Amino acid sequence: MRRLVVLAAAAATMWAGEGKWTPQQVLKLNPAELKKQGLQLPVRRLWDPVRGTGLLAATVNTGGCSAGFVSEAGLVLTNHHCLFGMVQEHSRPGRDLITNGFLAGSRDEELPSKTGRVNVPRKFTDVTAQMEAAVPAGASDLERAKALEAKEKALVAECEMTPAARCRVAAFDGGVQYVLVESMEILDVRLVYAPPRMIGEYGGEGDNWMWPRHTGDFSMARAYVGRDGKPAPYSKDNVPYKPEFFFPISTEGVKPGDFVMVLGYPGTTVRSLTALEMADREKNLYERRVDLYGAWIRLIEEATKGDEAGIIATAATLKSLNNVYKNAGGQIAGLKRGRIIAKQKAAEAEVEKWAAGKPEWQSALAAKKRLDEMVAEKERTAARAFLLQTVASGGSALRQALQLVKLAGERGKPDAEREPAYMNRMMPMMVAGLERAEKSYFRRADEALAAEWIGRALKLGAGERIKSVDAAFGQGDVKAKLAGMYDGTKVTSLAERLKMFEETPEQLKARRDPMIDFAIALQAELDVFNEQAKAIDGAVAKLRPAWRKAVIAHAGKPVAPDANSTLRVSFAHVKGYAPRDGVVYTPQTTLAGMMEKHTGEDPFDVPKKVREAYEAGKAGRWKDARLGEVPLCFLADADTTGGNSGSPTVNGRGELVGLNFDRVWENVANDFGYNPEIARNVNVDIRFFLWMLDEVENADGLLKELKIRK
Amino acid sequence: MRRLVVLAAAAATMWAGEGKWTPQQVLKLNPAELKKQGLQLPVRRLWDPVRGTGLLAATVNTGGCSAGFVSEAGLVLTNHHCLFGMVQEHSRPGRDLITNGFLAGSRDEELPSKTGRVNVPRKFTDVTAQMEAAVPAGASDLERAKALEAKEKALVAECEMTPAARCRVAAFDGGVQYVLVESMEILDVRLVYAPPRMIGEYGGEGDNWMWPRHTGDFSMARAYVGRDGKPAPYSKDNVPYKPEFFFPISTEGVKPGDFVMVLGYPGTTVRSLTALEMADREKNLYERRVDLYGAWIRLIEEATKGDEAGIIATAATLKSLNNVYKNAGGQIAGLKRGRIIAKQKAAEAEVEKWAAGKPEWQSALAAKKRLDEMVAEKERTAARAFLLQTVASGGSALRQALQLVKLAGERGKPDAEREPAYMNRMMPMMVAGLERAEKSYFRRADEALAAEWIGRALKLGAGERIKSVDAAFGQGDVKAKLAGMYDGTKVTSLAERLKMFEETPEQLKARRDPMIDFAIALQAELDVFNEQAKAIDGAVAKLRPAWRKAVIAHAGKPVAPDANSTLRVSFAHVKGYAPRDGVVYTPQTTLAGMMEKHTGEDPFDVPKKVREAYEAGKAGRWKDARLGEVPLCFLADADTTGGNSGSPTVNGRGELVGLNFDRVWENVANDFGYNPEIARNVNVDIRFFLWMLDEVENADGLLKELKIRK
Repeated sequence: MRRLVVLAAAAATMWAGEGKWTPQQVLKLNPAELKKQGLQLPVRRLWDPVRGTGLLAATVNTGGCSAGFVSEAGLVLTNHHCLFGMVQEHSRPGRDLITNGFLAGSRDEELPSKTGRVNVPRKFTDVTAQMEAAVPAGASDLERAKALEAKEKALVAECEMTPAARCRVAAFDGGVQYVLVESMEILDVRLVYAPPRMIGEYGGEGDNWMWPRHTGDFSMARAYVGRDGKPAPYSKDNVPYKPEFFFPISTEGVKPGDFVMVLGYPGTTVRSLTALEMADREKNLYERRVDLYGAWIRLIEEATKGDEAGIIATAATLKSLNNVYKNAGGQIAGLKRGRIIAKQKAAEAEVEKWAAGKPEWQSALAAKKRLDEMVAEKERTAARAFLLQTVASGGSALRQALQLVKLAGERGKPDAEREPAYMNRMMPMMVAGLERAEKSYFRRADEALAAEWIGRALKLGAGERIKSVDAAFGQGDVKAKLAGMYDGTKVTSLAERLKMFEETPEQLKARRDPMIDFAIALQAELDVFNEQAKAIDGAVAKLRPAWRKAVIAHAGKPVAPDANSTLRVSFAHVKGYAPRDGVVYTPQTTLAGMMEKHTGEDPFDVPKKVREAYEAGKAGRWKDARLGEVPLCFLADADTTGGNSGSPTVNGRGELVGLNFDRVWENVANDFGYNPEIARNVNVDIRFFLWMLDEVENADGLLKELKIRK
Repeated sequence: MRRLVVLAAAAATMWAGEGKWTPQQVLKLNPAELKKQGLQLPVRRLWDPVRGTGLLAATVNTGGCSAGFVSEAGLVLTNHHCLFGMVQEHSRPGRDLITNGFLAGSRDEELPSKTGRVNVPRKFTDVTAQMEAAVPAGASDLERAKALEAKEKALVAECEMTPAARCRVAAFDGGVQYVLVESMEILDVRLVYAPPRMIGEYGGEGDNWMWPRHTGDFSMARAYVGRDGKPAPYSKDNVPYKPEFFFPISTEGVKPGDFVMVLGYPGTTVRSLTALEMADREKNLYERRVDLYGAWIRLIEEATKGDEAGIIATAATLKSLNNVYKNAGGQIAGLKRGRIIAKQKAAEAEVEKWAAGKPEWQSALAAKKRLDEMVAEKERTAARAFLLQTVASGGSALRQALQLVKLAGERGKPDAEREPAYMNRMMPMMVAGLERAEKSYFRRADEALAAEWIGRALKLGAGERIKSVDAAFGQGDVKAKLAGMYDGTKVTSLAERLKMFEETPEQLKARRDPMIDFAIALQAELDVFNEQAKAIDGAVAKLRPAWRKAVIAHAGKPVAPDANSTLRVSFAHVKGYAPRDGVVYTPQTTLAGMMEKHTGEDPFDVPKKVREAYEAGKAGRWKDARLGEVPLCFLADADTTGGNSGSPTVNGRGELVGLNFDRVWENVANDFGYNPEIARNVNVDIRFFLWMLDEVENADGLLKELKIRK
């Protein structure tokens, strides 16, 4: 059955959604082909490289998520889970915005945030030649890594001389190309609207990554700037930002087969890895994550059982751990199901065959061989490496102790020589993080996560010991020692953390704080480990581009690079799929389906006001004539990944028809390779958002601002 | 979406599968309409009432299941789960036919069974007038029940004068009609073929009642008779039975939209209940079953954990409890989802409105009113009634003790005056049951089930006490007392049971066997309860027909009666459905889908020989060109219920295309009402059975007997 269905779907559209195209690549794609697919705008309307504007300029980054401007007064629409931290920031027992949602009755009521940021794209400059030229001839691997890092810092520093500019150098496919990305960072972002959690997160962890989906995963914020129009920290005198472009909202909706584009900032994909590198990730990243994160999740659940404050404090951490955990399981399943590693191996073999007789590609083949050898070398200490990489993902106390210790060390260096995360430009974010940690700290859970990590470190093989852990916990009872450390540390106090933030390594040491002392020893080992990792990065920075250039030359057509958190476009169509024998998923769900799932119990507890509106038949103008119901979510075959959360999904005229918020479970492993049969992203239909504002929230002011006529 | 799909499906076929038609009704249906649906045979070929033959004569009853003759030498094809008891009977540690399956290499190797029976239909005689005439004018409710029972016994006794005849009087819709059903009972039935459990039960309890399904739920037995062609107990001199008719097997298969008929013995439906009676069943039967059976299942699982012998012994009991449990949950969900009770209420209101002004229907309205009043009266002791009705479904020791006590009492009466289950004609079955119980007894589990039941009985309200339980267990520790009872009883010994089978009540009492003593006291209460229930039956036997005649008159067209384990036909089409928002189930699954589900772990552990045949591409001639795979299961909208298991599913030419083995979860509540949107039965495609015999089992002899050319 599956085969038939897929053939039918393919015949209907003739377009594989593969490829997260850069703005520069979009301009080079065949316009006639894009038009045939459904694009009704000139390609230049997507991105004007000279003026740094177009549809893509309205696609902003909120730090890990994508979002879009939707009004001339700086309204930003993104996912509920992207603004969840802001909702949490303003929630407390007795004023539970997480559960009840929030709607600002007027601009005065909008809620400022300590950490909310909006990055507006401005300019992309190819700096490949400059980066390559920065590496001295005959550099060692570590020297190469450091030279590239130094050049990157210099380029960023120069770029950030422009007022309000936020810059980075993005490597494409490991260094085939380097691009200097300039954006403007808006610092005053305020919460305008969040639906109740049982809309924004309806279906909870069980439905996460799943279809059919009935989640209203949207929230809205407003970007504010100083009266001069320039980014400025929060002030009540700030004014709404006027974007040069914002997305008009379509009230016509989508139907199966419709052309859509998903715009946003996909985080990381790894399609440019070799097959052996992929297998290494499966084993040493995803399988280990399933194991450790699974244990951590259970520990948080146990530690907070029946404790309302604990549950609120750990909500965001738990959500994030669950997300990583489920993703890892999906990657493993998807790799197997899609036989992705075997396919990559076969594709490599073709390139190798093609390159075999060609002298100009011999160094590419050697680079590929070396990449694969390095996998085998890393294998010996893979368990240790995984633990060192995850130490900061568990307990928040230890994470902050490590961060403060590292900062104190780095601060002694000139700004340009520091690790990028500890440069002066990052300080405001770090302080905000230290402050926000206050909300999410819950000792019982925090201690359990740390104990789990330490217990695993103590079980490492003889060649992989972590000495600082052995020294602190090698003898006696881990839990008792750890409890002593938590009792004795001041790192869990915000006031003390903010003091430590200013201190030198000597001052920190003089505190004789047990957690800080442990962090000092552990950080020294992390520094060595990171230096080794940097040398590996330096090697890869030479090897991967060499090999990928051969792959691209062999393809003989544009190849979209791996995602790297830079702005991308995916061209797609609204489309269902056959997840398994005997089952077809249709591409749209409805409000009626949300009601069908309603059990009255979390995570299927539709809020009363929504049920009442549904039961009263208040569909308003939002009913889809074909479906006979208010539409809720839809699927498309867009090529997305983490970071695309909140991405505007627009129609061929550039009008907003939805918000991307997830991929389906079967498609999680598309980070490794795109499979048109099951590559589906999940969008919330913008008509459901409008229905909520219109028929449930009576948010007439917002609807007017969104230019939706009643 | 659902609405659209359903409309499309309806347009494609124009035939609602509602109705389990009796052979007599089939002859009265419009032949032109049946032809239009796809029936290519004259209706007389389905059933010839004069000669008692036709397609339906090849549809046999194996005691709770349906089956069909498929060869001229008495081969009977039915579900794996229908012959599971026979497979279990011949399994023991070291010779595990349950796991490995069984294929008789020759007739000599076929395995005789103690309990296997095949009932071949012969004749249906309307005895309504005789039954009604048997009730004296002015009879009380209890007198009416007893008069009907006496008349039934007399009719059955007379009918069974015919050699080898097995007879019963079946009431249709509570007595609108009474039919004397005569069949021939074949006593020597031998196991010929059972696939490995991981084919016959693939997907286990998780997939039970579910779609998509990949279960090869088939097994085959052979019916033997004496050399004179008459039924005879097992003897090696017996010869295969030559049925007058058997189902030819179609090798062409089915495709979506094809016409099919499901023939068989549906057990019980309750569509003729009033809305209030339905609500009573939901609450006092299904909700209570979910509660008690759920507890019993957990107890068996705990009691047998890690004990191979215990797991084998309790396998059939557990399967049966699970089936009831899941069914009950589905009934509740389906009643709610289909709003069936509300619909019945609305339908009743229409009949009431129609009858209101008509003097001839006033007694029908009064009957309906009285039926509803009786529901309210029963409510007061509903918890007690449920426990008394389920005492025999838990522990096997207590069940047998009760049976032996009851038998001793009944045996003192003339045969015709006994409870029907204890008449002489039932004795061989009872002995076989006592013998088979030896295989399924596992004390730890048995004791746990009994303890659970007793614990619940001890918690009954003041007006509902069960005195025998109070007397035996009211004081002290239930578990300790029960352990003493199990230690002291001889009812768990087969040899002793067979002795007790011959004993009088006095002899049983003289044994001073603690389990028997408890059963004597409890049986006395059960007798009183059953007498009260009989009086209620007597009332209903008058009220229900009165009301139903009004309902039928109001319908003005043939109304198929409720299922009552008599032979029926359902006319249907191969068809998928939309189980929920965003999902469509296609009507066919494939061997590839079975492989997709394979995890290597129970219940998704495809046997090695099957995997090897699949991986070697051995599809043989059994691949469906449209599906591109060997077909496995298919859905149709046939109107089925429990008892239809093993039903031959035949095409318009009367050729076997599948075996019915289940309904989908959404359709379990069709016992209360047929909903064309979700009424789907699950069939195994006969081509998968043939593929197994051909490509996996190399059962060339059987294929030849089935007239399948290699």
